[in-house]
Amino acid sequence: MTSEHNATLSALRTVLRREGLDGFLIPRADEHLGEYVPKSAERLAFCSGFTGSAGLAIVLQDRAAIFSDGRYTLQLEAETDGAVWERLHSIETPPEAWLKSTAPGQRIGYDPWLISADGLQKFDGVEMVPVRRNPVDEIWTDRPAPPLAAAYPHPLDFAGEDAASKRERLAKSLTEAGQAAAVLTDPASLAWLFNIRGSDVAFTPIALGFGILKADGSAAIFMEPEKISGALREHLGNAVTVASRAELAPALARLAGETVRYDPASMPVWFKTALLEAGAKIAEAADPVALPRACKNATEQAGARAAHLRDGVAMVRFLAWFAKAAPLGQETEISAAEKLLAFRRLGQHFRDESFPAISGAGEHGAVIHYHASPESNRAIQPDEVYLIDSGAQYLDGTTDITRTLWTGPGPAPAAVQAHVTAVLAGTIALAQAVFPEGVAGAHLDVLARQALWRNGLDYDHGTGHGVGSYLSVHEGPAGISRAARPVPLKAGMILSDEPGFYLPGAYGIRLENLVLVQPADFGTQKRKFLQFETLTLVPFDRALIDPALLSPEALAWLNAYHAKVRDKLAPQLDEIADSETLAWLRAATAPM
Amino acid sequence: MTSEHNATLSALRTVLRREGLDGFLIPRADEHLGEYVPKSAERLAFCSGFTGSAGLAIVLQDRAAIFSDGRYTLQLEAETDGAVWERLHSIETPPEAWLKSTAPGQRIGYDPWLISADGLQKFDGVEMVPVRRNPVDEIWTDRPAPPLAAAYPHPLDFAGEDAASKRERLAKSLTEAGQAAAVLTDPASLAWLFNIRGSDVAFTPIALGFGILKADGSAAIFMEPEKISGALREHLGNAVTVASRAELAPALARLAGETVRYDPASMPVWFKTALLEAGAKIAEAADPVALPRACKNATEQAGARAAHLRDGVAMVRFLAWFAKAAPLGQETEISAAEKLLAFRRLGQHFRDESFPAISGAGEHGAVIHYHASPESNRAIQPDEVYLIDSGAQYLDGTTDITRTLWTGPGPAPAAVQAHVTAVLAGTIALAQAVFPEGVAGAHLDVLARQALWRNGLDYDHGTGHGVGSYLSVHEGPAGISRAARPVPLKAGMILSDEPGFYLPGAYGIRLENLVLVQPADFGTQKRKFLQFETLTLVPFDRALIDPALLSPEALAWLNAYHAKVRDKLAPQLDEIADSETLAWLRAATAPM
Repeated sequence: MTSEHNATLSALRTVLRREGLDGFLIPRADEHLGEYVPKSAERLAFCSGFTGSAGLAIVLQDRAAIFSDGRYTLQLEAETDGAVWERLHSIETPPEAWLKSTAPGQRIGYDPWLISADGLQKFDGVEMVPVRRNPVDEIWTDRPAPPLAAAYPHPLDFAGEDAASKRERLAKSLTEAGQAAAVLTDPASLAWLFNIRGSDVAFTPIALGFGILKADGSAAIFMEPEKISGALREHLGNAVTVASRAELAPALARLAGETVRYDPASMPVWFKTALLEAGAKIAEAADPVALPRACKNATEQAGARAAHLRDGVAMVRFLAWFAKAAPLGQETEISAAEKLLAFRRLGQHFRDESFPAISGAGEHGAVIHYHASPESNRAIQPDEVYLIDSGAQYLDGTTDITRTLWTGPGPAPAAVQAHVTAVLAGTIALAQAVFPEGVAGAHLDVLARQALWRNGLDYDHGTGHGVGSYLSVHEGPAGISRAARPVPLKAGMILSDEPGFYLPGAYGIRLENLVLVQPADFGTQKRKFLQFETLTLVPFDRALIDPALLSPEALAWLNAYHAKVRDKLAPQLDEIADSETLAWLRAATAPM
Repeated sequence: MTSEHNATLSALRTVLRREGLDGFLIPRADEHLGEYVPKSAERLAFCSGFTGSAGLAIVLQDRAAIFSDGRYTLQLEAETDGAVWERLHSIETPPEAWLKSTAPGQRIGYDPWLISADGLQKFDGVEMVPVRRNPVDEIWTDRPAPPLAAAYPHPLDFAGEDAASKRERLAKSLTEAGQAAAVLTDPASLAWLFNIRGSDVAFTPIALGFGILKADGSAAIFMEPEKISGALREHLGNAVTVASRAELAPALARLAGETVRYDPASMPVWFKTALLEAGAKIAEAADPVALPRACKNATEQAGARAAHLRDGVAMVRFLAWFAKAAPLGQETEISAAEKLLAFRRLGQHFRDESFPAISGAGEHGAVIHYHASPESNRAIQPDEVYLIDSGAQYLDGTTDITRTLWTGPGPAPAAVQAHVTAVLAGTIALAQAVFPEGVAGAHLDVLARQALWRNGLDYDHGTGHGVGSYLSVHEGPAGISRAARPVPLKAGMILSDEPGFYLPGAYGIRLENLVLVQPADFGTQKRKFLQFETLTLVPFDRALIDPALLSPEALAWLNAYHAKVRDKLAPQLDEIADSETLAWLRAATAPM
């Protein structure tokens, strides 16, 4: 690998010199700046070997650096060649700071499709030069073709609101804001707005493309024509034009003189440049789809409940199987994850996992984004902690659940129980929250952490993320984290509630349910309050819970939750065919 | 009043026409943009009659509007003439929006000493014209002279760090930030940095003035020479020059070519203009004194404890007196506040109240910023709720406490007890918080509100504000409020913990202690944790508490707190002279 990447960098440097550039940015990003990118956009992996989901390389003529965050420190060391790359922590050594001190006065190229306006602004003070064609593509001779999977309609039975109605209410909000049009660069926004889905990337059912929504309710989609069938064209209707990616620049040019909504935080800076060159005025504001998409309608909420019922059935089948299998020590991280996937495949409307399952035994559970590979895969052993974080894409809803299990057959140590119970107290405290409209996830995060903090413990990740409806398992704009932008929570949002605790080298704990924001009715009060409905229907492992460490209120919640799980799931199981699962479920949900 | 203010406006409009202005902004502000302003700066009150602490008037040739927030809606109506003034809510009708729609294309004057750069920026789109001399001063023939109270040294025994050391460490931070100098416009920053105090405004012991701190550790104070005695001059030392206000502009001009720190949020835009005109570069950043001032050193912390001990003695003498007097119905809001002040005056180092006491019986308690005037003053009646929010300036510390009392002699209704106990649960939950470094007050605010929110109740004010050390009772930069900038809490900060609940027309509840941020030691943990030490030493009124509504944990905190209050205060009281107070204290702090 080393010499190959060395040759790659040599070739890249030759191209850069020809273009009059002293260096070039290679972010892990595609033109939509999303989480999952197609193979054709894995330029960072091609150049460096690094396959993590967040990273940036800066290639200069005489040195090269690659940056990622703490999640990927070990992976970065393992996958890249230290003789070629300086491996740096992007928080401790921000790339822009490194560049300013390392290459003062140099001309640094960037691909304006692969960085946001805000992202580019961080490099203020450096001479940043946009390129017309990405130099990496010139040397990447076996670059995979961009995906061209067929897009398809998302039926009204699942979407709950037809696309014309969605366009109409968003167009109205544009008119009210004095905006003639809005640029859409997030494929999940196209998916929601036009009620379409696709298969261009793994785990998230989106069709890659761009869009323009106008204040008159008309819209344009820019997507390779191969992806649009006649049936889909009909589904889109007459108010929506469809054109190839090549038509995007001319379409933006036609917005000359208009005020166009553009989000500098999430959209490629290419759009900003194109709009300004066209003579359009830019109104900086978030993607207009983001908030409406996050607030699920009644149909989507019912779909989420139905999907979680099916997901709960798959999970309890898995847990019942695991309870028997784990003490025998014959299973591995990969075989267990495959078993769970097999149970999920039995569910109606199942399409895919919603992300690569995290199946971690013992010390692997402490690696927050662990993925069991054939090399890392290890046996799940008796009497240890096992963490499984997984989810599914069903046509009617997206799931995401984490449970931490004791493999047995012996009892769990009291110290482990204390850690798990502190995490569980956090999951429950957040689930019980009641709060007025206006409160954001950043303001509730403490509820999930207080039990840990009182013991001097914490976890280095957010408490919750938004979840789509048969869309991305990580969906904005709201989240539950101090670092998150304080987006007020609104009824209909689905969020994860997933505190954790990690003891490196020993074990990891995370307990995750999805919750749906619902109105809380206090009768005569004028102020509107909200609360959470827990969607996930899966017992917590009682072997890891010390009920004496829970407050009476939290214990009552737990017992009520387990009773609800039992009452919802038992009717879905067959007394004869599922007798073992049913017996396990009844024992697992008995009052503590 | 009406005709007088009408004549005032006529005279003002004449001046404006002469100056070629179509209108003029009159904020309730002085040149330091602080909370308490001297009488000489009460231009808004002079022009309109409105005496609230937050407001802005816009006088046009043919109409005039005055804006304040919800706290002052009633006062605005009462104090201003509706025939002359449009009285508007500054949140619902932002002044800048009103101006843009009411007076498009007009030239609006403003005094650049009375608005921050950020404040002015809100009026982008309006032709805003700075004036050299405030037109109000021209017509305000009997304008009071600006205060010229003598400034005086704040001894090292109270300050805990000498001024040279403070200048040195702040100068170092300027150097590290690449800043040659910092402008200081907050008199509390001068007070802290130079260990001086003054008497220019009510309640806050500051000397009005400006300053420049340089990266070499030298500094300049701009203050009328009458305020600086020879002894003070000596206290300031050779590295500090003192000059009159007239020298400020030339001093800024001498910063040509330098990078100068300036806070656009809190400092008059006059400084920005002067610096830019001088050819200085501006580094936008917070007042460098704000954070160091907030983190009290060991001497200040010890002073705060000593001041709270004295304040606790005064409060329990007051509460013991109140318990006997209130059921008789012979006292008034004003007489009770005067009684408390008389007890406080007995304490060593007492100098003043730290703000105008809020003494509200019954429905007056629901007016969050109520101030009993001779007109509003009413009898404190038997069997009602009474709220007293007050504080003191001692040389060694500033106090601020609110207690809500039941006057008796009958028992409090269960509904009132339920409200008070929910508020108390919030006070306690916040006091018990443990959190890692990096957490801000915005993230902890929910702890003080959860018990109320679960009942569909809330309060429309922040939960806590910073408190100075013999300085402002409202001190930045940290606060406990969702609206606050998320300034991470640091060891040594003193904050208030004051949830409330208000039933308009009936009663108000607020329970306020001051807390000191302290390290929390968990032994081997790497991450640093913080917790609160409660400084205030005063019992909560048990007549208003239903212990059955508190969690076992909260009740244990309350009983431990009361025991601590008794153990600390009893030795300060004389068994014979204070026998009634002692008896009351012992009963008031018995376990519940």
